[in-house]
Amino acid sequence: MSSAKPFSMAVKAVILDAEGRCLIIRRSAHNSNFVGCWEWPGGKLDPGESFATGLEREVLEECGLTVELTGLAGALEFEMPKVRVVMLCMEARLTGGTLRMSEEHDDYAWVPLSDLQNRTLLDHHRAFMLDYANRKTPAP
Amino acid sequence: MSSAKPFSMAVKAVILDAEGRCLIIRRSAHNSNFVGCWEWPGGKLDPGESFATGLEREVLEECGLTVELTGLAGALEFEMPKVRVVMLCMEARLTGGTLRMSEEHDDYAWVPLSDLQNRTLLDHHRAFMLDYANRKTPAP
Repeated sequence: MSSAKPFSMAVKAVILDAEGRCLIIRRSAHNSNFVGCWEWPGGKLDPGESFATGLEREVLEECGLTVELTGLAGALEFEMPKVRVVMLCMEARLTGGTLRMSEEHDDYAWVPLSDLQNRTLLDHHRAFMLDYANRKTPAP
Repeated sequence: MSSAKPFSMAVKAVILDAEGRCLIIRRSAHNSNFVGCWEWPGGKLDPGESFATGLEREVLEECGLTVELTGLAGALEFEMPKVRVVMLCMEARLTGGTLRMSEEHDDYAWVPLSDLQNRTLLDHHRAFMLDYANRKTPAP
């Protein structure tokens, strides 16, 4: 009866600028999957790490930026071969640093939330990202 | 500019039985706040504890039950005097144990999701619980 897959937590940062654009980064060929897909910065928590500390660490490692978390964007769930991932997405604002990519990503872009739909997004995040954009974008 | 309040994580279990009812428990006078309010079992994570391990521990401590987490119910956010809490709610199913309350709660009930609205629920969970019930209840 029991599912063999344990749960694991991942975190993503929706870093918003003053114009309401969010930072997305593109997965490089250094990754074993989803190469070329755009995503919000973030990743897995290290063992024993709080979600806030882990997310700030991931953003710094992936983008060279320091951020302050400002609130919850939402949560989603997806299956990977060995684990079921619960991904917590937090809104954040820039506090410092210099934008540069690690070897895991090869490009970045600040995009209006309404333009996310035109990007090749990670499949298991896509629906959540577009729903978030829809919730945050003022109705016309 | 920086908010003084750090983020903290809490977890709740939506334990569902075969009839689709969920387990709610009532906060006793042992608590310093929200006495008499009904809530899903759960609580704060201990430092370094994963959300899954922490939630299973809390359910066992509060209810005497062992559960298996089955999926994400959703996440919500609220402010407490010293922290901003991100609360992750996970669906779960019973695997064992004997239902009994700790000193923190003085009653329990298995209620259809559609009856949650008739209970005095914790204020900062109420909207989320009712929205969840609405999402999970088949349209008439």
